[in-house]
Amino acid sequence: MVTAARYYPQLLSIMGNTLRFLPAFVAMHKLLLEGYVGEMQVCDVRVYGPSLLDQSYGWTCEELMGGGGLHTVGSSIIDLLNYLTGFRAHRVHGLLRTFVQQNGLIRGIRRVTSDDFCFFQMLMGETGSSSGGLCCTVTLNFNMPGSFVHEVMVVGSTGRLVARGAELYGQRNGSKGEELLLGDSGWVGPEVKEMPLPHLLGLSSMVKGLRQSFQAHEERRSWAKGPVAMAPTFEDGLYVQTVVEAVKRSSCSGEWECVEIMSQEPDPNHNLCEALQRNKT
Amino acid sequence: MVTAARYYPQLLSIMGNTLRFLPAFVAMHKLLLEGYVGEMQVCDVRVYGPSLLDQSYGWTCEELMGGGGLHTVGSSIIDLLNYLTGFRAHRVHGLLRTFVQQNGLIRGIRRVTSDDFCFFQMLMGETGSSSGGLCCTVTLNFNMPGSFVHEVMVVGSTGRLVARGAELYGQRNGSKGEELLLGDSGWVGPEVKEMPLPHLLGLSSMVKGLRQSFQAHEERRSWAKGPVAMAPTFEDGLYVQTVVEAVKRSSCSGEWECVEIMSQEPDPNHNLCEALQRNKT
Repeated sequence: MVTAARYYPQLLSIMGNTLRFLPAFVAMHKLLLEGYVGEMQVCDVRVYGPSLLDQSYGWTCEELMGGGGLHTVGSSIIDLLNYLTGFRAHRVHGLLRTFVQQNGLIRGIRRVTSDDFCFFQMLMGETGSSSGGLCCTVTLNFNMPGSFVHEVMVVGSTGRLVARGAELYGQRNGSKGEELLLGDSGWVGPEVKEMPLPHLLGLSSMVKGLRQSFQAHEERRSWAKGPVAMAPTFEDGLYVQTVVEAVKRSSCSGEWECVEIMSQEPDPNHNLCEALQRNKT
Repeated sequence: MVTAARYYPQLLSIMGNTLRFLPAFVAMHKLLLEGYVGEMQVCDVRVYGPSLLDQSYGWTCEELMGGGGLHTVGSSIIDLLNYLTGFRAHRVHGLLRTFVQQNGLIRGIRRVTSDDFCFFQMLMGETGSSSGGLCCTVTLNFNMPGSFVHEVMVVGSTGRLVARGAELYGQRNGSKGEELLLGDSGWVGPEVKEMPLPHLLGLSSMVKGLRQSFQAHEERRSWAKGPVAMAPTFEDGLYVQTVVEAVKRSSCSGEWECVEIMSQEPDPNHNLCEALQRNKT
């Protein structure tokens, strides 16, 4: 898919990670580039909320089918940190847990295999360089019904920026308190219970961007790059998937794992066999 | 020292970790025992604040002399989590960093070796058992002048408890929001800038406990156990020191390290040589 996207650049191919489009993160990205925090040292991300499982048994319960906090939420955070910092992860360390393996609706011989608690660390640095000066810690906990915390903090040598939900706060070293840099514009559309506010507002901005991109050309057969320039590419998607796999490997091995982006197309049969094998053990 | 303390039980020997005495943690301990959160799953601790370094070069700059976030603050958190949960760490994984190695006052040939960022995970379980069902993550960051965050959260199967500063909040699964379980009584004594509120209030409670303990006996030659029953013993101190050492080992090796409490007295000469050796490399 990455190769195909490269081959037809006139076709729009973007990943559906909408957090990049949330105004708070757009502003954060800009301020980081302008040096608000100085040299970046630590990123700390926390997402807490209720269970991600569907009411009935389905893919959300199954790690191999893409369920769980790491796949669903972690991947959007990995992409976001890449966007915000401009750095990529070189080494990762992770820990996945499934605390709730059965509930009132998923029981009997069925068990949840997807993670409801996921913690990982990433050592990040410039693309191509192998030294990672930036330490990122990401904590995802979906055993907290009745709450929703979405916090992304970047601490640097001269200050820090924190996005809480859809709001952005900042504090420079030497100042007495935090300042609100961008308020929460709120959601004016119909109520969407299933989707947390940052993702909802981000999705809305992304769709607006897409509309502008196509409206720019009369016949809507081509599109303008500007409004969707910040969208993740398929290359970004491959990077995110590689980090996710490395975190899962690390959770099994207990060791730091290197993030090595695939440069050759894999043999699909080989991968399928491996997945089936893994499922059996 | 542990052996000596065991040998003279009529002499009072307690460790100076005062967080156990903070009313918020006393209440949290009680609620955890009563099953407020159900089965404990995850503990998440964050301490953020300004630099721990002294104005001039001294022991606070030197890892070998006991400086740094892990030694100064981490040890009190390790002790606190042992007190709150009743569990001990079996395996730990850690990452230490010194982002600020020189500043306006520490420069030239001198460098800070003590950590200003420390992250560690502990897998905890019942003493004696080797399975660790409880995942603890602890993030200490002392590159954040102008702020002080001290947050200890325990998430369980039926609810959660969070101590923010000296206040305790709780939420049971199914309820709509957090409830304030214990407010901050505040500090009425003279202003103490160097000590954060939770430590200051804890110290105050500990000293009150010590007074009661000795006042209970007319001649003040012996002491009553009751008021200082919750104080950490020298055995607890040895446990904390063992975990600290394991976290430091893990930060070097990059691997999970086992926490093995020393049962025989070490050869002091051997240890000194090892420390000097380590310092050279």
